[in-house]
Amino acid sequence: MGGEDEILSTMEDFAAVYDVLVIGCGPGGFTAAMQASQAGLLTACVDQRASLGGAYLVDGAVPSKTLLYESYLYRLLQQQELIEQRGTRLFPAKFDMQAAQSALKHNIEELGNVYKRELSKNNVTVYKGTAAFKDPHHVEIAQRGMKPFIVEAKYIVVATGSAVIQCPGVAIDNDKIISSDKALSLDYIPSRFTIMGGGTIGLEIACIFNNLGSRVTIVESQSEICQNMDNELASATKTLLQCQGIAFLLDTRVQLAEADAAGQLNITLLNKVSKKTYVHHCDVLMVSIGRRPLLKGLDISSIGLDERDFVENVDVQTQSLLKYPHIKPIGDVTLGPMLALKAEEQAIRAIQSIGCTGSDGTSNCGFPPNVLYCQPQIGWVGYTEEGLAKARIPYQKGRVLFSQNVRYNTLLPREENTTVSPFIKVLIDSRDMKILGVHMINDDANELLSQASMAVSLGLTAHDVCKVPFPHPSLSESFKQAVQLAMANGTSPGVHVRE
Amino acid sequence: MGGEDEILSTMEDFAAVYDVLVIGCGPGGFTAAMQASQAGLLTACVDQRASLGGAYLVDGAVPSKTLLYESYLYRLLQQQELIEQRGTRLFPAKFDMQAAQSALKHNIEELGNVYKRELSKNNVTVYKGTAAFKDPHHVEIAQRGMKPFIVEAKYIVVATGSAVIQCPGVAIDNDKIISSDKALSLDYIPSRFTIMGGGTIGLEIACIFNNLGSRVTIVESQSEICQNMDNELASATKTLLQCQGIAFLLDTRVQLAEADAAGQLNITLLNKVSKKTYVHHCDVLMVSIGRRPLLKGLDISSIGLDERDFVENVDVQTQSLLKYPHIKPIGDVTLGPMLALKAEEQAIRAIQSIGCTGSDGTSNCGFPPNVLYCQPQIGWVGYTEEGLAKARIPYQKGRVLFSQNVRYNTLLPREENTTVSPFIKVLIDSRDMKILGVHMINDDANELLSQASMAVSLGLTAHDVCKVPFPHPSLSESFKQAVQLAMANGTSPGVHVRE
Ligand SMILES: Cc1cc2nc3c(=O)[nH]c(=O)nc-3n(C[C@H](O)[C@H](O)[C@H](O)COP(=O)(O)OP(=O)(O)OC[C@H]3O[C@@H](n4cnc5c(N)ncnc54)[C@H](O)[C@@H]3O)c2cc1C
Ligand SMILES: Cc1cc2nc3c(=O)[nH]c(=O)nc-3n(C[C@H](O)[C@H](O)[C@H](O)COP(=O)(O)OP(=O)(O)OC[C@H]3O[C@@H](n4cnc5c(N)ncnc54)[C@H](O)[C@@H]3O)c2cc1C
Repeated sequence: MGGEDEILSTMEDFAAVYDVLVIGCGPGGFTAAMQASQAGLLTACVDQRASLGGAYLVDGAVPSKTLLYESYLYRLLQQQELIEQRGTRLFPAKFDMQAAQSALKHNIEELGNVYKRELSKNNVTVYKGTAAFKDPHHVEIAQRGMKPFIVEAKYIVVATGSAVIQCPGVAIDNDKIISSDKALSLDYIPSRFTIMGGGTIGLEIACIFNNLGSRVTIVESQSEICQNMDNELASATKTLLQCQGIAFLLDTRVQLAEADAAGQLNITLLNKVSKKTYVHHCDVLMVSIGRRPLLKGLDISSIGLDERDFVENVDVQTQSLLKYPHIKPIGDVTLGPMLALKAEEQAIRAIQSIGCTGSDGTSNCGFPPNVLYCQPQIGWVGYTEEGLAKARIPYQKGRVLFSQNVRYNTLLPREENTTVSPFIKVLIDSRDMKILGVHMINDDANELLSQASMAVSLGLTAHDVCKVPFPHPSLSESFKQAVQLAMANGTSPGVHVRE
Repeated sequence: MGGEDEILSTMEDFAAVYDVLVIGCGPGGFTAAMQASQAGLLTACVDQRASLGGAYLVDGAVPSKTLLYESYLYRLLQQQELIEQRGTRLFPAKFDMQAAQSALKHNIEELGNVYKRELSKNNVTVYKGTAAFKDPHHVEIAQRGMKPFIVEAKYIVVATGSAVIQCPGVAIDNDKIISSDKALSLDYIPSRFTIMGGGTIGLEIACIFNNLGSRVTIVESQSEICQNMDNELASATKTLLQCQGIAFLLDTRVQLAEADAAGQLNITLLNKVSKKTYVHHCDVLMVSIGRRPLLKGLDISSIGLDERDFVENVDVQTQSLLKYPHIKPIGDVTLGPMLALKAEEQAIRAIQSIGCTGSDGTSNCGFPPNVLYCQPQIGWVGYTEEGLAKARIPYQKGRVLFSQNVRYNTLLPREENTTVSPFIKVLIDSRDMKILGVHMINDDANELLSQASMAVSLGLTAHDVCKVPFPHPSLSESFKQAVQLAMANGTSPGVHVRE
């Protein structure tokens, strides 16, 4: 850390000294700043965006979930006959994407303001601008049209998030070939919308545009969508989305994407199984083959670091760089699942490691709950069946269909053209009856999953869950029923599953 | 039990001998029959209705929840401006009550068929008819147009449910003055609908007709609605429903209800505070001042019993009559909350007490989760603040508004004219941080409550809940947040609640 004084002496715009500077104000950065300040540390936070909240609020979870919900309502209202059967006579609805987008922008700003207010209530100074390291304890904050200035901090939390991975031959121009950020702010509905990548982000955005009337195709290089899902769940999800109208090209690679004179995109695809290439046409292609840590702009080379130091050379107990323990990367810039939950947990751990007792314990993020927010939703937590087989853990399973659930039958009519019946599957350890994994397709997986996550993360047994009184009628009753069934069923494989 | 042989010898229609006969096939009877049969007992079940499922499926939970959901959708679609702002352009919708009712009837039958199929799969004989005791081990089953016949059983489970309590001066004619059963099968929408009784059944049906456009008034003799609710929650619920258009006449007694020549109902009301009487006009009055055990038709006097023997003289460990331990009342015919959950738990206990190990443990029904299925829903489980104060248990509370929840903000627009902001309140024991009570107003309380019920019934602490990873974004996150806040807050009273 020599050379620090040198730099300082030339800094005419030296502004302020903090205990903690947090770079990036997504869920990770926000949580870190709040925790630090509540622990009595003088804290500042910097973000380069106009609105706080990072990928989560600005171009990730909030826009995707909002548009999913709105587009689902629209699709539902198309099913006039089903709804009329249940009493409400409707006239055809129209969807106005521009109205939806302007409501969304407003909503994002409002949520950003919640962040802002909370930070201000907790005396966190918030800077707007792009942060770049000057030396290990000094960061320059640059803002267009303003003179850059320097902030000094004892600890620096790096919560700069992630960016879309690009693909050679498929240059994102954010006109015809777009990223998820752009897709979620499109103010029109493309007639043919093709998506490269069948992960959760790709699938959710596929659902939005499919609900709104686009012809949606998903191109996935693997033989199944959603690699980290239980196989049965992944295959049911694919069938479900196919029934809703989404086309899948699996085992297929995008080799090249080019617009022709008429403005149509011609995409050269390679089928990995048949080894044949062919051309697929569409109007818009979204690239969502994954995200990578975003360190661009941070000038980490100026302090002798490269990307690997942030991703791999980290002490996970304290979220500290091995080279500079006072620099703490958290959230999407680190290894592991790219989820807001993980960013928040790491933020708490990072601040606790500074030596002050944070107010909350951290949760076990080893098996975070996952949701695909289509309708019905797909949710899962804990071990998959494949994971248990691989770990040679003897297990029993119980699988229950929601079609026999009373609450399910009081809710809205369902599309009839689906061959997948929503279900919940519970996997328990045959030795001690602990709940190891829960996988479901369900209108409300998003909330049901919390119970499952409680069971998995607290090591609850099937006996425990049986003791819990569940509200009647509720979809949650099916969780208990699946647990009971898992107890009654013998050890897998060869397990007899009653439905 | 003398005289048994005598009777038998005269019974020419003696039909069958069972280990267990279950009278009534609502949730209690169904569960008892399934458990008994699965425990290897020769089991029969009798119900007098055309469709199985008791009050729960036929004229209770299912019709109320279905109509609540449908009428809520209808009300939502009236808010064209709010929905247009979020993208979907709508034309005015109409509600066709006859269509809704015929879909509902179909749905109820289908659910009844699920019961029927499950019973048949489990080799339970199902009789249709009204059961009456002939002697302690013999029951006559009578069906219109058929010769009655006799069933003998070692054990008899009485799960005959409950019936509406009538009020002097207010004779139910099921035309202008109706019960909840009739209200839930009305095929038109009365323009002025008045309800006597502000309990959950009254409030839910009030919401249905209010959503559909009736002018709804609730007359309640107490000074607050929903006696068993936390005061803060009850008062917020009342304000919420008022904002939706429901009028409340509290501290008010119905003295007389009479139809005049024009077909209008004139209801004489007494304000208990001002001691003044006045006349209130409406088109339909629903009486829902409570329900009482239904033993009519069972001819319990023939075996020397009266109603008190069923309600009070019961061993609650085994659900046995003190006078005849082989006769086991369960569900709404017994003391305690009239909830499907309780009926099911008692059913399991009753069958377990027969000496065979039932497949499942029973849950602790001391603090059952409760839901009022209006929109937003009201849910609560465990201690109220008043209950804690009375029990002199030191507690801390955390209260969080959903308006700052990310998931909440991605969901549908909300009616603006409400002055109540949905919230969740968690009460924890100051001594050991155990979760003692959870109270909420929330679109999805129905499912969120399951987590709360897990925490309360398993004796989980605030520290436990903090360890659980909750899906992001989800309404459930607010549960964890309220728990964290409760931990941070000091002991009540004088507790500082941050919002
Ligand atoms: C379409 C989509 C849907 C998603 N849905 C979900 C979901 O449902 N649930 C879930 O848990 N997760 C979801 N995610 C992932 C989630 O958004 C991320 O895991 C989460 O935002 C990571 O938080 P973070 O704090 O690490 O980074 P981010 O939220 O990405 O925040 C980083 C912030 O740092 C700023 N920044 C970067 N570099 C600098 C710099 N040099 N100077 C100043 N500021 C800088 C960025 O502008 C940004 O505001 C989704 C993501 C996407 C793209
Ligand atoms: C409008 C309304 C809404 C409700 N909502 C909910 C809710 O949301 N959640 C909840 O948990 N509970 C709810 N309840 C209460 C719930 O329905 C009851 O607690 C539950 O049905 C009780 O179950 P049971 O098995 O004891 O009796 P029941 O369900 O009432 O079943 C009794 C059966 O026995 C039959 N029977 C009676 N006498 C005889 C006889 N002599 N011979 C043959 N058959 C006979 C009856 O016809 C009936 O089918 C609601 C009730 C009402 C009225």
